[in-house]
Amino acid sequence: MDATTIISEIASKASAASTTLSTSTRQERDLVLTKIADGLEKNSDLILKANQIDMQNAKAAGISQSLQDRLLLTTKRIMDMAAGAREIAKLPDPLGRVLIERNLDNGLNLKQLSVPFGVVGMVYEARPNVTVDAAVILIKSGNAALLRGSATASESNKVLVDVIRTAFAGSKISQEVVQLIPSDDRSTVSALLTAKGLVDLVIPRGGAELIRSVVENSTVATIETGAGVCHVYVDKSADLSKAIAILINSKCDRPSVCNAAETLLIDQAISDSFTPMALKALAEAGVVINCDLPTKKIADQIAVATKLATEQSWSTEYGDLEINVAQVDGVLEAIAHIAKFGTQHTEAIVAKDADAISKFTTLNDCAAIMVNASTRFTDGGQMGFGAEIGISNQKMHARGPMGLEQMTTTTWIVSGDGQIRQ
Amino acid sequence: MDATTIISEIASKASAASTTLSTSTRQERDLVLTKIADGLEKNSDLILKANQIDMQNAKAAGISQSLQDRLLLTTKRIMDMAAGAREIAKLPDPLGRVLIERNLDNGLNLKQLSVPFGVVGMVYEARPNVTVDAAVILIKSGNAALLRGSATASESNKVLVDVIRTAFAGSKISQEVVQLIPSDDRSTVSALLTAKGLVDLVIPRGGAELIRSVVENSTVATIETGAGVCHVYVDKSADLSKAIAILINSKCDRPSVCNAAETLLIDQAISDSFTPMALKALAEAGVVINCDLPTKKIADQIAVATKLATEQSWSTEYGDLEINVAQVDGVLEAIAHIAKFGTQHTEAIVAKDADAISKFTTLNDCAAIMVNASTRFTDGGQMGFGAEIGISNQKMHARGPMGLEQMTTTTWIVSGDGQIRQ
Repeated sequence: MDATTIISEIASKASAASTTLSTSTRQERDLVLTKIADGLEKNSDLILKANQIDMQNAKAAGISQSLQDRLLLTTKRIMDMAAGAREIAKLPDPLGRVLIERNLDNGLNLKQLSVPFGVVGMVYEARPNVTVDAAVILIKSGNAALLRGSATASESNKVLVDVIRTAFAGSKISQEVVQLIPSDDRSTVSALLTAKGLVDLVIPRGGAELIRSVVENSTVATIETGAGVCHVYVDKSADLSKAIAILINSKCDRPSVCNAAETLLIDQAISDSFTPMALKALAEAGVVINCDLPTKKIADQIAVATKLATEQSWSTEYGDLEINVAQVDGVLEAIAHIAKFGTQHTEAIVAKDADAISKFTTLNDCAAIMVNASTRFTDGGQMGFGAEIGISNQKMHARGPMGLEQMTTTTWIVSGDGQIRQ
Repeated sequence: MDATTIISEIASKASAASTTLSTSTRQERDLVLTKIADGLEKNSDLILKANQIDMQNAKAAGISQSLQDRLLLTTKRIMDMAAGAREIAKLPDPLGRVLIERNLDNGLNLKQLSVPFGVVGMVYEARPNVTVDAAVILIKSGNAALLRGSATASESNKVLVDVIRTAFAGSKISQEVVQLIPSDDRSTVSALLTAKGLVDLVIPRGGAELIRSVVENSTVATIETGAGVCHVYVDKSADLSKAIAILINSKCDRPSVCNAAETLLIDQAISDSFTPMALKALAEAGVVINCDLPTKKIADQIAVATKLATEQSWSTEYGDLEINVAQVDGVLEAIAHIAKFGTQHTEAIVAKDADAISKFTTLNDCAAIMVNASTRFTDGGQMGFGAEIGISNQKMHARGPMGLEQMTTTTWIVSGDGQIRQ
């Protein structure tokens, strides 16, 4: 069978089954999630064995250490996935929320309700935990899930999807709402991205290249996630010790993720006091520093090793312990720098001056602005969404972390007594 | 200059000016709208003269009567545009709404605010009033407007955009936020659709072919509007006289628009009583009837002229006084028919039975469901939005009528006191 036929069959099965999910009660959906958690716990040995095969193949293929780290499952990681499923079961039902209700003068009652998208495709890389996280969020939000993970994780994903599907036993909801898409051939991705009419939404989750490729090649609606060239701007009015803590947390807490900072912008009015502090703190934390000329002069004076930044540095998402540092002439120049090099993800300001904060929050165009807080807070869990399926840095539909509510769309129900339009 | 350079220059001008709009107060924006209304009223002679040139060219080019009707401006139509601008000035500010506010345990304050998209492109056809309607909605919602109308209306659009831009005199908001894109060459459309990074959103407004072409060729985000194959299902539990009124209003009130009905589905349990009533009422209203075999038999018995529907009839948006009629075995078969041939726009049920209504509202996948009301109510004005820029029948971002609120996106503002992620 060619990829288009495979996807068409899989998506049709999921679509046909999806009404058993979209019309289910939250109790029915939560019971499935709890059973998935049970199944993961009970079958951890089986899951670990499958993962070992993937790991052996990955090593034999000479796959990088960091990719191997992502691929690896441990008992703790499996228990974390199970705990995650139980947590999501406890969250409020994202479906059937009345978003707007109005009674019109002509007697019509108008309600805008949250409803599932229908069939959602996920395209992701080697992390097998995404298989469980995505399935659990999509089930809770009433969406059928077409899961296209990396070939590298295929054995792990097969067992995980078996465990997930087994959890539907005895439920009114059909197990066909969760489908694993074969990953032995890249053509299944293209077929998924062009299955308009069968698939309602595709979400890429992974590196910049994966996301770009999905968004550019998809005729199905997509939600663009992820690329994060995030900045920390330290204003002359900042509390400098807070600024250091925020800078180090933003850069070093988890450098590989999209809400990590890539560039520090320092108000030139405090370059004498703050720049040496910041450079020393970064160097102590093992961060490679790329900087502009004024900053380099200060670094050289205090014997902190730095490289001169190139034009390309400023738009690079390092995903690692590496940063850019530039001096700017106050908040407006910081905003101009961000407009030129940012990715509309998360921008942070450290300041006490209300006018600087106001300019920063109103003139930046991005998904999230942190005022005296770490860029790392742009996160569904941290923001109280309970879970997230990715972080959107597009302006349509969802902007910022996407939790359960963002995995729904709406329908208008207009109820009348025979009203016609005058 | 080639089209890409033209669009790049126009969009850059609009983008640079857009912060004067996004940071303006509602009073400043409303004053511009009021001045646009004044300008339209004062310059109606000038506008009519320009429109006469377009009309003469259209006639000389042998353009169809219905297109000429759309192109034509009259004093009343100009006064209606002015009145529309004044109405929109009175509506609540769609910007700066606090959509979510939370205080987190770690002391962070979290706000989700509504903000403009930035630069919005409109691609539309020969109706010059869209130039004013779109500009007014986009100004009110803080978005710079790139207006690409039809070449057929180019003289009218030039004068209208002059009137609009003149209204910014004396305002802090730059007139550069409204730009007319040259329409003498089709390549400006392609250039607009691929100006990613300069344009935040493109909305097509017009026929199915225009919409498909924009959505398929755009690398900029688009909102798909319009195609409406809407159904009226009459259940055996219906009040038949209300059903007739709803049917005739849905089909005949304004057959050219997307929320007009294209297909009547009759519960076979009432075909003896309702089908003859419906066929007679449609015929009296001058509606051409395409029907299935059971309906045709009834039509022949009562001597109402009908054609046998083809497979293609059921998915045709007539946009005219023409309809399909089919008999179905209850609400579930109606829903199956709609799933096969509908466009996820608006579906209506006429029924008293709560179970039939519940099935119809939960099992249909569409933007709006009318219960005992005309399909014509899927409309921003009718639903109390005050104005609409189109009707979205996609599931992302906006679904159904798009008013001012739908022309905004969001940003998260997270305010702290030095919080870092633990």
